[in-house]
Amino acid sequence: MSEKSIAIVGATGAVGLEFISVLEKLNLPIKNLKLLASKRSAGKTLKFKQTGIPVEETTRESFKNVDIALFSAGSSISRLYAEDVKNSGCVMIDNSSAFRMDADVPLVIPEINPQDALKHNGIIANPNCSTIIMLMAVYPIHKKYPVKRIVLSTYQAASGAGWEAMEELRKASIAYLNDQPFQQTIMPHPYAFNLFSHNSKMLENGYNEEEMKTFKESRKILHDDNISITATCVRVPIFRAHSEAVNMEFHNEAPSVEECKTLLDEFPGIKVIDDRKNNHFPMPNEASGNYDCLVGRIRKDESLPSKAINLFVCGDQLLKGAALNAVQIAKLLV
Amino acid sequence: MSEKSIAIVGATGAVGLEFISVLEKLNLPIKNLKLLASKRSAGKTLKFKQTGIPVEETTRESFKNVDIALFSAGSSISRLYAEDVKNSGCVMIDNSSAFRMDADVPLVIPEINPQDALKHNGIIANPNCSTIIMLMAVYPIHKKYPVKRIVLSTYQAASGAGWEAMEELRKASIAYLNDQPFQQTIMPHPYAFNLFSHNSKMLENGYNEEEMKTFKESRKILHDDNISITATCVRVPIFRAHSEAVNMEFHNEAPSVEECKTLLDEFPGIKVIDDRKNNHFPMPNEASGNYDCLVGRIRKDESLPSKAINLFVCGDQLLKGAALNAVQIAKLLV
Repeated sequence: MSEKSIAIVGATGAVGLEFISVLEKLNLPIKNLKLLASKRSAGKTLKFKQTGIPVEETTRESFKNVDIALFSAGSSISRLYAEDVKNSGCVMIDNSSAFRMDADVPLVIPEINPQDALKHNGIIANPNCSTIIMLMAVYPIHKKYPVKRIVLSTYQAASGAGWEAMEELRKASIAYLNDQPFQQTIMPHPYAFNLFSHNSKMLENGYNEEEMKTFKESRKILHDDNISITATCVRVPIFRAHSEAVNMEFHNEAPSVEECKTLLDEFPGIKVIDDRKNNHFPMPNEASGNYDCLVGRIRKDESLPSKAINLFVCGDQLLKGAALNAVQIAKLLV
Repeated sequence: MSEKSIAIVGATGAVGLEFISVLEKLNLPIKNLKLLASKRSAGKTLKFKQTGIPVEETTRESFKNVDIALFSAGSSISRLYAEDVKNSGCVMIDNSSAFRMDADVPLVIPEINPQDALKHNGIIANPNCSTIIMLMAVYPIHKKYPVKRIVLSTYQAASGAGWEAMEELRKASIAYLNDQPFQQTIMPHPYAFNLFSHNSKMLENGYNEEEMKTFKESRKILHDDNISITATCVRVPIFRAHSEAVNMEFHNEAPSVEECKTLLDEFPGIKVIDDRKNNHFPMPNEASGNYDCLVGRIRKDESLPSKAINLFVCGDQLLKGAALNAVQIAKLLV
């Protein structure tokens, strides 16, 4: 592997900071690391492998001599610099939704469709966090027993809306516990000890964008237009790990619970936690900071026993849901 | 309506206190109110309609001259006194699961099967909280368009495990926010900013008791053995209102979203909150303290558009999930 020059755009955000930590842990061969952010954050210094690196303001010139640029600064920033990145001969790995559904942009989960990453035209998209975490649990089974329909309910953490949302959850909770008033500015609804329908844009069909992403992105990643997904996406007062209740109906007969466990156990990036005796199943507190997605509650659906199963998955939104998946994509390129 | 003598067993518990408040609000004709609890709580004084009432220790003699006894002190206490209650000519309205599935014990949601309440043999059971809140949202539609199968995911509050669990959530959250250690004693897992699979007993089939209650109790309440329910029950860090994501598949063609809204709007005890423009849907903070169950996110299931719909319901676990429903049953008897 030749050493690469890597840039992080949005380096001071919740995902940006995880990019730095994951680049260290996965030990990518890095020649040079460039930390980019908005003018407001420029001048800060962040640590990478014991060395302080100054954060620079992102400009159209930032991508010269950069091989891979990891973007996590929102769709508008990704769109703003996409041409500059491409013209510099650099590859953008984009955590935003800007290009995910573009026909010439691969949408990649390295454990599932690594081969797609190599067909890029300068941009590779990182899927939506809920989609990644769901498919990590679905794909090991789907690969052998094709899934026809998924009924999905999510329990999504604050981190999906950035560190400001995590901070709002913290501050709102402190105020609530002290019987103090609190006015939210990031989330549309009170977040302390409360939950609410996902705060993404509501569409004509009554679904929000987050819900439709799980459907559309899954079809693209799996290269399977015969899978359908109906989702209910909910924000819960949890800091950084998403949980998802997944009901999977198969085209043919459902595999046994034991076989599902074996298929999941053998899959990289998955840890099965399904200890019925001790009522120990996946939980956000154990998924947080964990590179693996935790899967459990694997059981036949008693309402459709020959055709469907239920399971529950937890994954760190900032890691496998964002930074880890993106750095794994980068690793496919080096 | 003739005045009744009413007893509350478990008067100092989370549901017990709501019994007192709901008895006041629903203005039942009460001749005498007796507050009963364990020896430990006896001697306390609680207020009912501006009058202090001393809490007495429950004994086998407690039910003499009592017409209706509202029980919420756990299954073992309900079992312990059931014969004494019946022998006193008193009717037990039991919030525990002790007798719910007994063939001669009606299981009643007053808006759904009030006629069953009158067929009692001294005991009427109050259904499980998740079941009540789910069926309040399902029945108005099911009555006209029979439901075949439900995929249910719950987001359940601490109150279902009593006020000790609510206190544990509060204390664990304070400790978490202050970076202090905390050892839980009520819940099996850390509760601060965390969620976990429902803490009821795990059964052979991989479902916990709470999940199987939603299935079995629904069939009994609806008098319909053709409805199947597969549930995933989860505790979330919320104090007192349950939320539930409900996917309903119909035997025949699904009704339109507009018709579902109309059917729900017209049903007593339901408030439709489905404001897509402002992303305002049912939330626990608005369901808490509310006698109505809140229903929204009503939409066609895009994975099965001619046959299924999704909706989201929130209800106060201590009110419609427990005390309110029980007092409404008492009202049917007076």
